[in-house]
Amino acid sequence: MPGNSDDFAIPVLGPCTIQSPLSLSEVMGDLIPNFVEEDERVLLNAVVRDGRVDTSRSFELAGPRRNIYFDPPKTRAGIVTCGGLCPGINDVVKTLVNELYRYGIASVTGFTFGYAGLIPGGPSPVVLTPEVVSDWNLHGGSMLGSSRGPQDPAVMVDTLQRMSINILFAVGGDGTMRGARAIWEEATRRGYGLAVVGVPKTIDNDIPYITRTFGFETAVSRAAEAIRSALVEARGAPRGIGLVKLMGRYSGYIAAYASLAVGDVDLVLVPEVPFTLEGLFAQISDILERQGYCMIVAAEGAGQDLFPEDDIQYDASGNRKLKDIGLFLKERIVARFTEEKSINLKHIDPGYIIRAAVPTPNDAVFCHELGEYAVHAAMAGRTGLVVGYWNDHFTHVPLVSATSRRKIIDPDGALWRSVLQMSGQPATF
Amino acid sequence: MPGNSDDFAIPVLGPCTIQSPLSLSEVMGDLIPNFVEEDERVLLNAVVRDGRVDTSRSFELAGPRRNIYFDPPKTRAGIVTCGGLCPGINDVVKTLVNELYRYGIASVTGFTFGYAGLIPGGPSPVVLTPEVVSDWNLHGGSMLGSSRGPQDPAVMVDTLQRMSINILFAVGGDGTMRGARAIWEEATRRGYGLAVVGVPKTIDNDIPYITRTFGFETAVSRAAEAIRSALVEARGAPRGIGLVKLMGRYSGYIAAYASLAVGDVDLVLVPEVPFTLEGLFAQISDILERQGYCMIVAAEGAGQDLFPEDDIQYDASGNRKLKDIGLFLKERIVARFTEEKSINLKHIDPGYIIRAAVPTPNDAVFCHELGEYAVHAAMAGRTGLVVGYWNDHFTHVPLVSATSRRKIIDPDGALWRSVLQMSGQPATF
Amino acid sequence: MPGNSDDFAIPVLGPCTIQSPLSLSEVMGDLIPNFVEEDERVLLNAVVRDGRVDTSRSFELAGPRRNIYFDPPKTRAGIVTCGGLCPGINDVVKTLVNELYRYGIASVTGFTFGYAGLIPGGPSPVVLTPEVVSDWNLHGGSMLGSSRGPQDPAVMVDTLQRMSINILFAVGGDGTMRGARAIWEEATRRGYGLAVVGVPKTIDNDIPYITRTFGFETAVSRAAEAIRSALVEARGAPRGIGLVKLMGRYSGYIAAYASLAVGDVDLVLVPEVPFTLEGLFAQISDILERQGYCMIVAAEGAGQDLFPEDDIQYDASGNRKLKDIGLFLKERIVARFTEEKSINLKHIDPGYIIRAAVPTPNDAVFCHELGEYAVHAAMAGRTGLVVGYWNDHFTHVPLVSATSRRKIIDPDGALWRSVLQMSGQPATF
Amino acid sequence: MPGNSDDFAIPVLGPCTIQSPLSLSEVMGDLIPNFVEEDERVLLNAVVRDGRVDTSRSFELAGPRRNIYFDPPKTRAGIVTCGGLCPGINDVVKTLVNELYRYGIASVTGFTFGYAGLIPGGPSPVVLTPEVVSDWNLHGGSMLGSSRGPQDPAVMVDTLQRMSINILFAVGGDGTMRGARAIWEEATRRGYGLAVVGVPKTIDNDIPYITRTFGFETAVSRAAEAIRSALVEARGAPRGIGLVKLMGRYSGYIAAYASLAVGDVDLVLVPEVPFTLEGLFAQISDILERQGYCMIVAAEGAGQDLFPEDDIQYDASGNRKLKDIGLFLKERIVARFTEEKSINLKHIDPGYIIRAAVPTPNDAVFCHELGEYAVHAAMAGRTGLVVGYWNDHFTHVPLVSATSRRKIIDPDGALWRSVLQMSGQPATF
Repeated sequence: MPGNSDDFAIPVLGPCTIQSPLSLSEVMGDLIPNFVEEDERVLLNAVVRDGRVDTSRSFELAGPRRNIYFDPPKTRAGIVTCGGLCPGINDVVKTLVNELYRYGIASVTGFTFGYAGLIPGGPSPVVLTPEVVSDWNLHGGSMLGSSRGPQDPAVMVDTLQRMSINILFAVGGDGTMRGARAIWEEATRRGYGLAVVGVPKTIDNDIPYITRTFGFETAVSRAAEAIRSALVEARGAPRGIGLVKLMGRYSGYIAAYASLAVGDVDLVLVPEVPFTLEGLFAQISDILERQGYCMIVAAEGAGQDLFPEDDIQYDASGNRKLKDIGLFLKERIVARFTEEKSINLKHIDPGYIIRAAVPTPNDAVFCHELGEYAVHAAMAGRTGLVVGYWNDHFTHVPLVSATSRRKIIDPDGALWRSVLQMSGQPATF
Repeated sequence: MPGNSDDFAIPVLGPCTIQSPLSLSEVMGDLIPNFVEEDERVLLNAVVRDGRVDTSRSFELAGPRRNIYFDPPKTRAGIVTCGGLCPGINDVVKTLVNELYRYGIASVTGFTFGYAGLIPGGPSPVVLTPEVVSDWNLHGGSMLGSSRGPQDPAVMVDTLQRMSINILFAVGGDGTMRGARAIWEEATRRGYGLAVVGVPKTIDNDIPYITRTFGFETAVSRAAEAIRSALVEARGAPRGIGLVKLMGRYSGYIAAYASLAVGDVDLVLVPEVPFTLEGLFAQISDILERQGYCMIVAAEGAGQDLFPEDDIQYDASGNRKLKDIGLFLKERIVARFTEEKSINLKHIDPGYIIRAAVPTPNDAVFCHELGEYAVHAAMAGRTGLVVGYWNDHFTHVPLVSATSRRKIIDPDGALWRSVLQMSGQPATF
Repeated sequence: MPGNSDDFAIPVLGPCTIQSPLSLSEVMGDLIPNFVEEDERVLLNAVVRDGRVDTSRSFELAGPRRNIYFDPPKTRAGIVTCGGLCPGINDVVKTLVNELYRYGIASVTGFTFGYAGLIPGGPSPVVLTPEVVSDWNLHGGSMLGSSRGPQDPAVMVDTLQRMSINILFAVGGDGTMRGARAIWEEATRRGYGLAVVGVPKTIDNDIPYITRTFGFETAVSRAAEAIRSALVEARGAPRGIGLVKLMGRYSGYIAAYASLAVGDVDLVLVPEVPFTLEGLFAQISDILERQGYCMIVAAEGAGQDLFPEDDIQYDASGNRKLKDIGLFLKERIVARFTEEKSINLKHIDPGYIIRAAVPTPNDAVFCHELGEYAVHAAMAGRTGLVVGYWNDHFTHVPLVSATSRRKIIDPDGALWRSVLQMSGQPATF
Repeated sequence: MPGNSDDFAIPVLGPCTIQSPLSLSEVMGDLIPNFVEEDERVLLNAVVRDGRVDTSRSFELAGPRRNIYFDPPKTRAGIVTCGGLCPGINDVVKTLVNELYRYGIASVTGFTFGYAGLIPGGPSPVVLTPEVVSDWNLHGGSMLGSSRGPQDPAVMVDTLQRMSINILFAVGGDGTMRGARAIWEEATRRGYGLAVVGVPKTIDNDIPYITRTFGFETAVSRAAEAIRSALVEARGAPRGIGLVKLMGRYSGYIAAYASLAVGDVDLVLVPEVPFTLEGLFAQISDILERQGYCMIVAAEGAGQDLFPEDDIQYDASGNRKLKDIGLFLKERIVARFTEEKSINLKHIDPGYIIRAAVPTPNDAVFCHELGEYAVHAAMAGRTGLVVGYWNDHFTHVPLVSATSRRKIIDPDGALWRSVLQMSGQPATF
C-alpha cells in the first residue's frame, strides 16, 4: 500500500509497469509539460503558526504518471452519475470520456439514471465516445440521467464484472460516495481489481478536503440573481422585506457567498450559527427603522431547531427531513409584524433554477480539470479515492476521508467574518 | 525605510496600540469570528517533496488585528484607481469605503482619473461615503476614472500631506504599483507615516504571489463567449478557421483558461511557448483535413518573435510595443492557404468588451474580500504592501515582491498540461 | 368631460397654440424627422376580408405635434408608479424625465410608493432631473417605489393642485389605470386642466389595444430560463415531470410565448382553455410512455375551476383570489401517478425572479418609446389616455377603452395554434 | 393565379385538393385553433390619413389551409441555409423539420454549406428528422453550414429533380433570395412543380415588408452590450471617446435600436443620413466640453462618401466594397483632437460576436413562427415567396417584392426621431 501519510493513504491496485501513452516529459525547461512525480504531496495545512508547520498530514498530488497500471487497449471504463442535479455534471463526463480516449482505452460505458443503471432490469447503459459527448457541455443537468438511493453493492459488482469493467467513475454526492465505497470494498473482497474513482458533486460545497466542489460557483451566480431580485422587491415597496431561501442543508456556503456577491444583504442565516426568532424580529425591526427595507438570506438548513420537536420527521434512510425554513420565516415574520405596522414580504425559493444551470466558464474549467485528474488517477491504478483540490493543487483524497464528515463554515473563521462585516448583523441574536 | 526582505517582511508604521473597534473575538467556539493572530503566516510552497517542506518562505496572514495602528476618528484615507479598466474596480472601491466606515474613519477621498488626480491642477477629488458608492458595483469600469502614466512622487506626496491623508489605497497594475512604491518611499524619506496599500489589478493575471487577480475570472467568462462565437463561425463555413486574439501581454492565462472553458479549441498560442509559422501552418492543415474546421486562440503577446526585427518599436517608457498577432496571423494564414485551397477565416478581437464587464458574482466576492483585507492591513499600520491570495488564504505581499517579476504559465506545469491535453496540440511546433 | 367614444376619441384640454420647442420638421426629404400630423390615425383592424376593410374604428397616432397645449416653462409634471413590479419601470421613468426636460418643462416631481405618495402624510416626493435618473435603467424594480391599493381621488387631486402639477404620468396596471381615470374625472369635475397620461404596465400582457406591454418580453426571457431548468430536471430523472407555474391571472401569454421560446414543452395550460384533471393525467401518461419524461407549463390562472367551489375566497376588492395551480397540480399528479409507477416531479415557481429583472435591450427600447410618446401626448394637451402600440405604430388609447376589458389569448387564433403545433397537445382534454 | 393584389400576388402550384392532416377547425368558439381563410389579407398601410385608407395593396395572410396542394406521404422537402451567420438559423431549421413531420412528409433533406451543397461534387446532404435537429436550437450559427456566392440554377434544379424534392426552403439574405428566385424560375420553365419558400435572413433588418427579420433582436442585444462596454471606457478616462462600429451596410437599424436600448449615446451615424467630418468634429468637441466624454455609434455603411473616390473597390459581383468606417473615424478623430488636447479613444468592432449568438427567447419564438408559416405556405402549394410579418400578422410576400429594394430607416420617420431625441444630436452636421 503506497502513501506515506496515515490519514490520506490511497490504495493502489498494483505496480505501475505500463508506460503512459501521453506525450509528456520528465525534463524541466523543455517546453513539454511534465508527468507528476510519485513522491509529491500537498500539505493539509499551509499555515505557519509560531514558526511551526504541521507536516504530518498531506495529500498525494494528482496528475498523470510516467508509468501506469492499466494497459489502455485492454481496459474498459464505466461512468455513473447519481443524486441531485448540479451544474457541470456533463462537463465532467465529457472530459472523462475524452481523456480516457486520449489514453487509448478500449471502451467507455455510460450507466444511465444512477446506480439503478447498474442493476439487471434497470435502465440500459449507453456507449460513450468523444463524438457522442461532444455537445453535452451545452446542456444543464445530466445527459446520463441520475437517480437517488442505494443499490445492492454485490449486484452492482456482478454487473461490472460481467461487463469486464476495470474502472468505475462515480460522479455524485455523499450517498454516491458511500455507494462507491461499498462497490470498491465488495470488489476488493472478491479480489476484483476495480479502480473506483469519485468526482465529488455537491452543490452545497460541503465535502471536506476540496476547496470548492464543481457547480458551486455556478450555483452562487444564480443564487446571487435571486437575491438581487428579492432586493429589488424589498426596495420597491414600503417596509419591504426580501427573503430568499437557498440550498445548504448542513453548510451555508451558497448563502454566504451569494450574499457577499450581492453585497447588500442585511441578515444571513446559516445552519452553522443558531438564532432565535425574537432575536431575528428585533434585527428586522431595527433594520426597517433605519433603512426602510430589509434583505434576508437563509440557507435551507438554518434554524431547524426552531421547529417544534414533535414535528420532526425522518426519511427512509433515517435522515432527519428538513423543514422549510423559508415558508416558516415568511409566516412568522408576517404574523409578527402585521400586527404592529404593515410590511411587504416577498419570498423567493429559486431551488431547481439554480441546480439546472449550465456551468459558468470558470466552473467549466474546474469540471474539465476534475475529469482529467480522475482519469489520471484511475489509469495509475489508484482506487477508493476522490479527486480533491487543496492549497491550489489537485489531490487524491481517500473515499473514506471524503465521506467521514461534512465541511461547514467555521463561525470563527474568515468567511463568516466577511459575511458579518458586509451585512452588519451581530454575531448572535 | 522600505523593507526588502527575502521572507516577505511587511513594513509597519509603528506599534499597534489602539483597540480595534470591530466586534470580533479571540475565543474559539463562541460563534463570534476571530481576529487574526499576529504570528500566523502562509507557506509559499505547500508541496511536500520527498517528505520535505520548504518552510523558509511564507507570507503574513491578512485580516483584522485586535490592536491597530491608526485611531479611526483621526484617520483620513484616499483611494486612487489607475491603468486600464478591469472588471471589479468599483466593487473593490465600494468595499474599501464601506470597511473604512465600519472602522469609523474620519473621511475617504476618491482621487479621480488615476495619479493625475493627485497633481495640483489635475482632476478634482470627490468625497466617498457608503451612500455615494452604494450602486457602484452595478457599473463596469471605474467610477473614479482612471489614467495611465506616472506622476512625480514628490508632488503626489505633497498633495497627500496637504490633505492630511494617512492611508492611500492604490488599485492598479504594474505601473500603478511602481507608483505606489515611489509614493511610499518618498513618504518614508520624509518621515510621513503614510500607509500605502495596493490592490493588484491586472486582467492578465500576471502578478506573482496572488493565485488570481480580480477581474480575471470575469475576463475568462467573456473571452469564452468570444471563442464560442469564433467556433460557431469556423464550423459554419467550409474549411472554416476561427481565430480569437485575447489579452495577455506576457502571460497567456486568459487564453489558456478561456480555451479550457470552451473545450473545443485546437491551437492555443501563448507568449510563454514559442512557435514557428511553418509549424502552425502544418498544424492547421492537419486539423482542417481531419476535422473540417480549425479553432485557434492567441494571447496578444504570443509569437512576438515572428515579426521582423527592424519593425520593433518602443514606447515612451522603453517598453517594447506589441505587434498585433491577431491581424498578423490572419494575413499570413489567409495568404498561405488561399493559394492551395480556399479557407474561411474569421478573426475576433474582443478587447474592450472583455475588460468593461461587470464582475461575475464569484469575482465580486473576491473583490469584496480584497477590499476588506486591504483596509485591515492599513488600519494595522502595514504599508508598502499589496493584498495577495495564496494557498487558500489572503496574505500580505511586499510591494517590492509583487513588482519584482511577472507570473507566467509554466510550460512544465499542470495548467499547460491541461491545455495541451484538451487541444491535442503538440508541445512545440 | 371625460370622453367615452366608440371611435377611441381622445379628450384634449384645449387648443394647441404654443409652438413645440422640438427641432423637428414638416418637410419630407429634408433629413429632419417630422412632427406627426393631427389627422393621422391607425386602423384597429388591418385585415382585409373578402376585399373589405373595417375603417370605422381607428386610433389617434401618437407622436410630437407642431403645436402643443402646455407652455413648457410654466408646466409642472408628476410621475407615479403603482402595482406589482415589472421590468422596465425605471426605463420608462427615465425617459419621461429626459423628454420632459427636452421640452424645457419647469419641474418634474416623482411621487414615491405609488398613489400613497399622493396622500398627505404619505411617503415624500422627490425631485427628478436627468442627473438623478441617469442610472435608473441599470436597476430592476421601481426606484420611485410602488404600492398597491386605491387612494381617495379627491385627496390626490388636492395634492396635485396644491403642487400646481399640470401633467400626471401614471405607470401601472389595471388598478392604476382605474385610479388614473378617477383622478382625471375628479380633475375634470373641478375644471382643473390636468393631463393624465398612463403608461400601461402589466407583465401578463393583458391590456387591450397594445400589442405587447413593456416588460413582457423580459418576463418571457426569464420564464424561458425557468422552463429550461425544469426540462433539465425532467430529462435527468426516470419518468421525470417538469412543472413550471408562470404569471398570467387571466391571460396565458407568458406561458404561451415562453413555451414557444423553449420549444420542448408538452403541455401548456392557460386560463383561456379549460381542462379536466383526468384529461391531464391521460396526457401525462401517454407522454411518459412515449418520451420518458413530460414537461408542463401552467399559467397561474389556469384550471381555477378545478378547485372545490366552497374553497373560493375573495379579496377586499371583491376579486376572486387565485388558488395556487402549481402546488395543486403537483399534489394531484404525484398522488395519481405514485400509486401506479414512481415518477419524479420537479415544480418551479419563478415568480419574483421574473418581475424583478432589468429589461432586455429590446424591451428597453420599447420603454424608451413609450415614455417619449407619453410626454408628446401630454404636451399636446391629451388627457385620459394611455399610450398604445398597434399595427406597428404608437397610438393614443382612451383610458376608458384600455380598462374596459382584458386582452386574452384567442383559442381560435394564430398564437394558440402555434402553441398546439409545437407542444403536440390536443386542443381539449 | 390566386391573389387579388397586383403587387403581392403569390404563385400557386395548382389546386389545393388534399385535406390538411392538421387537427384544426373552421369553427369559432370551439377552443380548437382555426385554419386560415383563403380570402384573408393584411393591408400594406394601416394608417388612415384624412379619413382615407389605401386598400389597394395587401398581403396574403400566412397560415395553415384546410386544403393543401401536396400529398404529405409523397412529398419530399429540402432545406438550405446560405450567406453570413445570423442568430436563429438553427431554430428556423428545427421548426421547418418538426412542422414538416407534423404534416407527415416523406423525408427532409438538409443541404450543407449553402447552395454549394446543391451542386454535384459539393458537400454531402444530410437526412433531417426531429431527433437529429432536437438540440440544434442550443447552437449559434448554422448546423447545416453556410456559404456565400451563387451557383448555376440549372445545375441546382437538376439536383433537386434527381432527388425528387418537391419543396425547397431557402434561409438566407438578399443573394440567397435571388438564388431562390432563379431556382424557382428555372423550375417553372421546366414545368417542374417545385415550391420554393424563403425565410428572409438579414441581421441588418433591411428586407422590405417584414417588420423585423429573425436574429435582429438578438443582434441588438449583443450590440447594446458592446455599446455599454465602450461607454464604460469613455467614462473611465479623461476626455474619453467610445466608438462602436456595428453591422448595417445599407440600413442603420442595429445602430439605431442598440443606441436607443443603451440610451446614453451622443452620436449615431447611419448610412441613411450623410454627415461631414468637420461637422462630426464640431459635435465631438462640444460634447467633450459639456460632458467630459463622448459616445459614438456608427453603422458600417455610414459615411462611405467620406472616403476618397479613387479608393473605391468593387467585389466579384460588382458590389462596392465597404470601407471600414470604424478605423477611418478612429484615425481621423485621433489625428484631429490630439493636436489640440489629448483624448482617449476606444474603438470596438464586435462583428462576429454579434452574429454567432444563440437567439434571445423572443427571437426564438419568432424563428419558430417563421418556420411554421413557411411550411404551411409550401404545403398549400405557394411558391416563389418569402414569409413576411406586417401589421402584427404573418404574411406571404412574393420573392420578387422581397428582393426589389432594401428597407432603410426613414429620416423623416418615428425611429430616427426617437434616436435624435435620445442622443440630442442635430439632424444634420
